[in-house]
Amino acid sequence: MHTATFQELHHAAAPLLLPNAWDAGSAVAFAAAGFPAIGTTSFGIAASAGMPDGGRSSKAATVALVGQLCRLPVHVTADIEDGYSDSPAEVAELVARLSAMGVAGVNLEDSTAGHLIDPAAAAGKIAAIKRRSPEVFINARVDNFWFHEQASVDAVLLRAGAYAEAGADGIFVPGLVVPEDIQTLAAGIGLPLNVLAHPSLTVAELGELGVRRVSSGSLPYRASVDAAVNAVTALREGKPAPQATSYWEMQSRLLAFSQRPPLPRSLP
Amino acid sequence: MHTATFQELHHAAAPLLLPNAWDAGSAVAFAAAGFPAIGTTSFGIAASAGMPDGGRSSKAATVALVGQLCRLPVHVTADIEDGYSDSPAEVAELVARLSAMGVAGVNLEDSTAGHLIDPAAAAGKIAAIKRRSPEVFINARVDNFWFHEQASVDAVLLRAGAYAEAGADGIFVPGLVVPEDIQTLAAGIGLPLNVLAHPSLTVAELGELGVRRVSSGSLPYRASVDAAVNAVTALREGKPAPQATSYWEMQSRLLAFSQRPPLPRSLP
Repeated sequence: MHTATFQELHHAAAPLLLPNAWDAGSAVAFAAAGFPAIGTTSFGIAASAGMPDGGRSSKAATVALVGQLCRLPVHVTADIEDGYSDSPAEVAELVARLSAMGVAGVNLEDSTAGHLIDPAAAAGKIAAIKRRSPEVFINARVDNFWFHEQASVDAVLLRAGAYAEAGADGIFVPGLVVPEDIQTLAAGIGLPLNVLAHPSLTVAELGELGVRRVSSGSLPYRASVDAAVNAVTALREGKPAPQATSYWEMQSRLLAFSQRPPLPRSLP
Repeated sequence: MHTATFQELHHAAAPLLLPNAWDAGSAVAFAAAGFPAIGTTSFGIAASAGMPDGGRSSKAATVALVGQLCRLPVHVTADIEDGYSDSPAEVAELVARLSAMGVAGVNLEDSTAGHLIDPAAAAGKIAAIKRRSPEVFINARVDNFWFHEQASVDAVLLRAGAYAEAGADGIFVPGLVVPEDIQTLAAGIGLPLNVLAHPSLTVAELGELGVRRVSSGSLPYRASVDAAVNAVTALREGKPAPQATSYWEMQSRLLAFSQRPPLPRSLP
């Protein structure tokens, strides 16, 4: 079914570009657009439920969405925030459950409720996941730049080193946007470097800097909410209704999806 | 809290323009954009869950979403498809539950699983709702034009008459786009006429034809999914990431929403 494994997609000519879905409908549309792998967005899932991101509110919704995504012929990677727990065993239990559902990978962040946590605590979760589910690609998120634009590259390298040693398969540094910093980290981290898409750099430019994976993160959800509001405010301003994929086309796509049998998913 | 009741919004200088939310995040954004009333979209709710529309799959999700929407300082009207049941008592029970949550109105359609039902059956549901919850604005949907572009205006008038007699407060004719037909129906139906927004006519033009309410329907959801896909395909095509409302701005809006106390909602 997959021409490339999820691992292999991190070592292709161009960086792996990940669309991040917040619901089944967006995932179905991403799959129809030909993306070989789809992530989830914790922000989008939380926002969809009327909650702020990062507050451990989305565990059940994330598990439910993963169940839907794993019916699509794509690799699925789940954003599980900080694992929704301080307990490495509980986090490993969750990932084992997701793995049984068919996920190829997870993102695990080293912050809780808006604050960086002790890197040893994050490494403990990574080690527990890897021990229990060695088949899952662990994308370890280092959040220094996420909270502080002026974070130190050395601090990120220290954390990334600890996570690599604990068994991480990739390192995700959201908030990283300065080309020199990206280049330094891509060269200094012995694992595929993942960054968020940013208006200042194209995916190709990020690839030239050494990035192996580019996440769209919460951008698709934020763009989607903006588009929804813009569609109706355009009407309010006297403009005609904007064009969009038709009701019947989207409806027939969802009908096909809802009738799709569960995929046989062989663990890598 | 409301300067105008939901009823009054159907008799204002301009037609009531309804944005239709599929999740709490979109509803929060619509409220922030200043819309005085927000509807739900059965298509968006079903699609979000990976299901086609009109299959009675979204009852629980709709009730849950209404609970969220009723925390916003806007009038809320719920799209309940065909009431998810053939039993007037069951449909009335659902609407009573939504009314207790604070909805101002519901949309009830006279089709089930893609087919028009006997108008007497639809009228029976309307009468049962009105008996049980007289405070709820019943927008009775007449689906002839939804399934057949060339439907007859007379057939719609017959159905609309039966629904008005059963206690409907408004008539919704999705698929109605020919100006002459709109004018005939607006004049011939003794209740506020609701149509779907359409690229061929502005809200003001619809108002001149006699329309009192314009729904965006599934458009915001469809535009949102298109925007999500476009955001990531733009990246794939080598373009920089598009602009969108920032993560932190949306996050702070959701934080405020999640901490909002339940609204005191007086029934009209």
